[in-house]
Amino acid sequence: MRTLRSKYKKMKKIWQKDNTTTNDLVTKFTVGKDLDFDDRLAKYDVLGSIAHAKMLAEVGLIRLDEEQDIVAVLEEVLSEIEKGNFEIDKTAEDIHSQIETILIEKLGETGKKIHTARSRNDQVLTDIKLYLIDEIREITELTDSFFQILKDKANLHKDVLLPGYTHLQVAMPSSFGLWFGAYAESLVEDLELLFATKNIINKNPLGSAAGYGSSFPIDRESTTYKLDFRTLNYNVVYAQMTRGKSEKLLANSLSVLAGTLSKFSYDVCLYLSQNFDFISFPKEFTTGSSIMPHKKNPDIFELVRARCNRIQGLPNELILVTNNLPSGYHRDLQLTKEILFPAIDSLKECLEILIYTLPNIEVKDNILDDEKYKYIFSVEKINEEVKNGKSFRDAYIQIGQEIENDVFEYDYKELNHSHQGSLGNLCLDEIEYQFNKVRDKLLG
Amino acid sequence: MRTLRSKYKKMKKIWQKDNTTTNDLVTKFTVGKDLDFDDRLAKYDVLGSIAHAKMLAEVGLIRLDEEQDIVAVLEEVLSEIEKGNFEIDKTAEDIHSQIETILIEKLGETGKKIHTARSRNDQVLTDIKLYLIDEIREITELTDSFFQILKDKANLHKDVLLPGYTHLQVAMPSSFGLWFGAYAESLVEDLELLFATKNIINKNPLGSAAGYGSSFPIDRESTTYKLDFRTLNYNVVYAQMTRGKSEKLLANSLSVLAGTLSKFSYDVCLYLSQNFDFISFPKEFTTGSSIMPHKKNPDIFELVRARCNRIQGLPNELILVTNNLPSGYHRDLQLTKEILFPAIDSLKECLEILIYTLPNIEVKDNILDDEKYKYIFSVEKINEEVKNGKSFRDAYIQIGQEIENDVFEYDYKELNHSHQGSLGNLCLDEIEYQFNKVRDKLLG
Amino acid sequence: MRTLRSKYKKMKKIWQKDNTTTNDLVTKFTVGKDLDFDDRLAKYDVLGSIAHAKMLAEVGLIRLDEEQDIVAVLEEVLSEIEKGNFEIDKTAEDIHSQIETILIEKLGETGKKIHTARSRNDQVLTDIKLYLIDEIREITELTDSFFQILKDKANLHKDVLLPGYTHLQVAMPSSFGLWFGAYAESLVEDLELLFATKNIINKNPLGSAAGYGSSFPIDRESTTYKLDFRTLNYNVVYAQMTRGKSEKLLANSLSVLAGTLSKFSYDVCLYLSQNFDFISFPKEFTTGSSIMPHKKNPDIFELVRARCNRIQGLPNELILVTNNLPSGYHRDLQLTKEILFPAIDSLKECLEILIYTLPNIEVKDNILDDEKYKYIFSVEKINEEVKNGKSFRDAYIQIGQEIENDVFEYDYKELNHSHQGSLGNLCLDEIEYQFNKVRDKLLG
Amino acid sequence: MRTLRSKYKKMKKIWQKDNTTTNDLVTKFTVGKDLDFDDRLAKYDVLGSIAHAKMLAEVGLIRLDEEQDIVAVLEEVLSEIEKGNFEIDKTAEDIHSQIETILIEKLGETGKKIHTARSRNDQVLTDIKLYLIDEIREITELTDSFFQILKDKANLHKDVLLPGYTHLQVAMPSSFGLWFGAYAESLVEDLELLFATKNIINKNPLGSAAGYGSSFPIDRESTTYKLDFRTLNYNVVYAQMTRGKSEKLLANSLSVLAGTLSKFSYDVCLYLSQNFDFISFPKEFTTGSSIMPHKKNPDIFELVRARCNRIQGLPNELILVTNNLPSGYHRDLQLTKEILFPAIDSLKECLEILIYTLPNIEVKDNILDDEKYKYIFSVEKINEEVKNGKSFRDAYIQIGQEIENDVFEYDYKELNHSHQGSLGNLCLDEIEYQFNKVRDKLLG
Repeated sequence: MRTLRSKYKKMKKIWQKDNTTTNDLVTKFTVGKDLDFDDRLAKYDVLGSIAHAKMLAEVGLIRLDEEQDIVAVLEEVLSEIEKGNFEIDKTAEDIHSQIETILIEKLGETGKKIHTARSRNDQVLTDIKLYLIDEIREITELTDSFFQILKDKANLHKDVLLPGYTHLQVAMPSSFGLWFGAYAESLVEDLELLFATKNIINKNPLGSAAGYGSSFPIDRESTTYKLDFRTLNYNVVYAQMTRGKSEKLLANSLSVLAGTLSKFSYDVCLYLSQNFDFISFPKEFTTGSSIMPHKKNPDIFELVRARCNRIQGLPNELILVTNNLPSGYHRDLQLTKEILFPAIDSLKECLEILIYTLPNIEVKDNILDDEKYKYIFSVEKINEEVKNGKSFRDAYIQIGQEIENDVFEYDYKELNHSHQGSLGNLCLDEIEYQFNKVRDKLLG
Repeated sequence: MRTLRSKYKKMKKIWQKDNTTTNDLVTKFTVGKDLDFDDRLAKYDVLGSIAHAKMLAEVGLIRLDEEQDIVAVLEEVLSEIEKGNFEIDKTAEDIHSQIETILIEKLGETGKKIHTARSRNDQVLTDIKLYLIDEIREITELTDSFFQILKDKANLHKDVLLPGYTHLQVAMPSSFGLWFGAYAESLVEDLELLFATKNIINKNPLGSAAGYGSSFPIDRESTTYKLDFRTLNYNVVYAQMTRGKSEKLLANSLSVLAGTLSKFSYDVCLYLSQNFDFISFPKEFTTGSSIMPHKKNPDIFELVRARCNRIQGLPNELILVTNNLPSGYHRDLQLTKEILFPAIDSLKECLEILIYTLPNIEVKDNILDDEKYKYIFSVEKINEEVKNGKSFRDAYIQIGQEIENDVFEYDYKELNHSHQGSLGNLCLDEIEYQFNKVRDKLLG
Repeated sequence: MRTLRSKYKKMKKIWQKDNTTTNDLVTKFTVGKDLDFDDRLAKYDVLGSIAHAKMLAEVGLIRLDEEQDIVAVLEEVLSEIEKGNFEIDKTAEDIHSQIETILIEKLGETGKKIHTARSRNDQVLTDIKLYLIDEIREITELTDSFFQILKDKANLHKDVLLPGYTHLQVAMPSSFGLWFGAYAESLVEDLELLFATKNIINKNPLGSAAGYGSSFPIDRESTTYKLDFRTLNYNVVYAQMTRGKSEKLLANSLSVLAGTLSKFSYDVCLYLSQNFDFISFPKEFTTGSSIMPHKKNPDIFELVRARCNRIQGLPNELILVTNNLPSGYHRDLQLTKEILFPAIDSLKECLEILIYTLPNIEVKDNILDDEKYKYIFSVEKINEEVKNGKSFRDAYIQIGQEIENDVFEYDYKELNHSHQGSLGNLCLDEIEYQFNKVRDKLLG
Repeated sequence: MRTLRSKYKKMKKIWQKDNTTTNDLVTKFTVGKDLDFDDRLAKYDVLGSIAHAKMLAEVGLIRLDEEQDIVAVLEEVLSEIEKGNFEIDKTAEDIHSQIETILIEKLGETGKKIHTARSRNDQVLTDIKLYLIDEIREITELTDSFFQILKDKANLHKDVLLPGYTHLQVAMPSSFGLWFGAYAESLVEDLELLFATKNIINKNPLGSAAGYGSSFPIDRESTTYKLDFRTLNYNVVYAQMTRGKSEKLLANSLSVLAGTLSKFSYDVCLYLSQNFDFISFPKEFTTGSSIMPHKKNPDIFELVRARCNRIQGLPNELILVTNNLPSGYHRDLQLTKEILFPAIDSLKECLEILIYTLPNIEVKDNILDDEKYKYIFSVEKINEEVKNGKSFRDAYIQIGQEIENDVFEYDYKELNHSHQGSLGNLCLDEIEYQFNKVRDKLLG
């Protein structure tokens, strides 16, 4: 493809009718960071063009031999993209223009027919949706790996007790089983939302052209089928409205998943503090200080937290850019790429580093032996009184007075938490069943 | 219930072990606006308590006669609530405490047993989830009414043309059919997200107690069934994490629906401007100016837009309040009520006023006759050239030059847009089918 | 005033030209929560009207006797407002209409002249600015009280050591002097921003009418002087743009102050945890649990944190509502009142509860004796080596190896931190000097 | 500098005590995008180090000859930076480490002394503040250029009338003078806020070390003077808190300026629409469509709007990342660079493109002749009645009825708006005076 590229160095814009050139500074400003992101759309643009060309032949808008020529060139481009040989030409306005230009260079008149009954608006809509669906798959797979680790750690450490807190005050006994398991279950719901989001995005906008359709008798069901969309965005004005909305929907969903990772990382940072000292990591997963030689800092988890907190702001950013615009395309929508795409990368990197790091976590034993956790068993003692016939509220008052008078004592041997989801009955199988069900729907 | 209330004027807090009273100013600050919102939770708190009491009897933690006494009192309270006779006592700390106090007043020792194996944490979790599920039903019904109007208007005015815009520049022909239909289709996806949200919220947290479960052998499947939850939040630590998360998930979903209403209202305000003049409303749906006697202002739609834009910020508000808190309950979560609940009311009011107002919309005919929309048919003319054998790109250049040289003319008689979702083929039946499918799942 | 009110029960809207009434539901929706907030604007509306009437007389638009009649009625209304006897009539459209109606009722033809050369748009702009300036004064005074407590506590406990953390890992010695003093200094900068904000808001918009001025020869310098504005918003179109912008500017400023209070509260909640146990409060400043009798929860500080975190989202909320609207008034701006005004109240309540609670804080002694803080003196030991001639980087490596080999020991007697702002030299006087300087400018 | 760099290819981290290397993946994740942003901090890091070295000599912590050696090397590095020859080594952890490494390479033992009494924490704090202050200067200069264009355009077109809108409904006469002038005055206030922000940022944090100061007898007044800071952040714990807060303060200020540019761009996009048609730009400032040959789209202004709307979300992004962290440094703060710095670039690019484009704007004459603007003079006619003796409210009713009965006519010849800030008296000199005053303070 590199050899091909050299020929198109001075590509005109596809919408240029004469030789008047748009001012260079204007071009630079309007293209912006687009070319940095269009490379990830290249593959989908070609796939969309192949489906479009085949459909054009089906409905008689191009001849079969024309279709075959177009598809052959596009498949060559696709092959270059997959080999990593394709580069966006820095003089191209965008990926869509570049591929049309290649077709015209290679096929002459036939190439000039590819843009029949479509616009860059529905092209980019289609590209983005296909791209986001692929990213959803990758995020699902990473989430799956992270889930397995959490579930395994929950099972492995299910009998190691932790203090449970409310208001950050020592409250009741918890366990590493509960703690890891909680985040595993959180991922179930995060994927349930992601699946709904995928289903909404997974509708074909191709054929909506510039947002008002076309007078050509195209067959949108056909491209829907060829591109493996679940159904189509029927109304062409609405299809255009999904630009920005699809991005927001995915951003919402990523925001929720990021919320889980952020919260987990916050706990990790807290539990690594000397004041908690519940867990540790081998030295190679920590960093030092330029001034304090004793430091082993949990930078990984602070950065996962910070990145995920930024991602939680993603929907708001997209709303600020796309809101209060009347219906119809506006160039403002270009910015959704540079807002959303790096955030997708960042979230995947967070999942990757967690998957890499978490297996190395070490948990401390006998944490609850410390005097400061003494009252953590006050409710256990109340419950014993209740089992012996006292009403709950009276037992509560009695134990409260023991504590007040500093005569409370409790010698715990073993905890008898047995109900569903409690520390003696983690329901990891049920949680895994639910996780696998939604994961399989996402990957299926 | 008013007569009952007078007796509890000086209710102690349920957690008070002696007569030390929390400072009044502290009480005022910590109770905050809670009592303003707890009235809407009262019904669900009673329902949750009934299910809890029955389950306690099933597993032998209370006797059957105790259960019957408790349930009888709770049903009396429920009946008062439904008659509108129940008021939160201003001296109560919250609704949960008030109902426990009533039980103790009425039943003595038996009443003191209701709080066995639960905490206010899982009570309020349960109440909020049940409440939100009911609100989702109401929002669905209002959205259904709004959908019907949009669909009917789309059908009624399907042949009335509008200019379509991109970049707010006159672009290609559109129609009122497309415009109304686009917002109808938008509501389909908004409900698809709402349905996923409902399914995630619709899981039973009862039995998670203060977020660490209990050593009583309770049966959480039983309360799940009794309260008609779809399944349960297994892990008790995770169940507690759904506080704040459920609210955020619904806020996300409302934000997306609000985005549709806001965008529609923006279009309406624009189209009502003298510079567009596409639509009008009878005078009684507009307001005047204190200084300009000719004004008929579209305040309704400006306010729907503004309220819905505020609602779009809801998820961000909730994230700011709940983020970067370690696992376990924090009092910060109290604020989710005063953030989310009024926003639900506001969104419902927006839907109501739209349902009330929109049937009165009047659309203008012959809009496209105006000279300024002349070039709107440029693509039609290109398409004719293409149908006559020219390649798209060459036809584009030719028509472009006609426009440039000011010789472009086009005498449109009728538009032949026939593909799915285009102005000649609105697919309203398909859109309605999709809407009804998701609506029925939400209401089913 | 109550007697007056009864007469106006069926007030027509001031912009009604005939007897067609705006639909009741429309009225209800458009008035919204406005009347809940207009009561705090009443005083300023009257003050603005007095200045306007005097100016109208000065430039000859009304006669001197007319001015005297108008001012007399307005002063009567003002007196009622100040006595707390004034209520917004629930049938009035807004406070501006109600006061004009009173003038017409009392003065007939003369009353009908008050609205000459103004609009409700510049009235409400003026009212809001005057109101916000008064609120800035109150917030300044509360901040002053809070500052004094922080400064006094810093001084009182200046020798009590605390562990200092980075990455929430034990790092270097800190002190209560440093900790309290840091938040005191934070308030200096918060007020510096508030002062700049006040100066920007403090410009007269009166006379901009509906945002396009007026053909009457009014004297805007005169009303600027009478209302004690610093200068005027000259351009009338810009004056209108300050609606929404003034609110955002103040919201920004409150957001920064709220950030300080939130961070302080976060520290307090952490330090109250048994895992830190650096401070405590008397029981009456804490709350209990419905299930755990040992709990003393720091709800006050959690709620200050949560409220202040919500306030930090205020600028974003206002941007969402006011953004992407073309120049000129839109009804959307009405919502700024119900967004900003309750947040001002909430922030003041947070300051009040902190001022009330903080004097009762108790600090623990000898915290650093605990084994877990052992390495906190590693840098002290490096510094001793440096003072004995070693380079910093070599000393760092040496002490690092001692720690690694578990032979690090350090017997601290006294810390010799002497530079400006260090724990041995808190610079409280300098900080107070800076605080007083900006406070005096704000109150002056 | 390139030759120098090759020697340090395998730089150890400055905090490494032995040969254990932090895992590569961990390093990659934790360094993140930092090296992309550290190049712009290099200059300030060297300047800070020079001031620090000189101060160390002054207080006797290093010898005079050592200081001279250190400063000589640092000045050499500075010279390379200014020539554009300096590159961050991709194996360096950050800019601070790289410069310390160069000093050690060049000076041996002497180089190892530079880190005495400081930490990377106060280094980066100092670097960022110095950098932001320089960016504030550049933004001020660009804003100045934009102001001049707006003011000149306001003056040039002061007599060309425009319709003024409220509720996007035709309201009263406005003018290009008012329109351009409004945005000029907006910039005055935006700079007033920027100046306050600069003053708050402009305080020296150097010497706060890791946020807890140092036991060395350093002189922080001396470095304050040398680095030309206005004063110092006294309290060392607070100095550390300014990390994140300085960024937020500037983000707030940029958000407000961006709000002005966004609103202006929105107006431009609207006025360029065929439905308004108030202004135009030469073709080379517009872009075309891939499908519609007649399009001349205002992409520049749409993109300025979108970028500036994104910038308005900046404070919220920073709050999400930095909020709810206890006092003391956290690695999360690293992300403020990659959030804020590109936004600064983007805002400058927006100002540049506006400065480049706006001089080419063309305004239309005789806009108000169009029939649809007929009622724009209704208030003028009321005012004439008032001048003839009628009360305002009666005149309002009379003209309202004329409009209602479709008998309103008004033959405007000339408008007599004469008051300050009205279309006949734009007060451009006063606005310019205020602008220059704040600009000079910012640049002074």
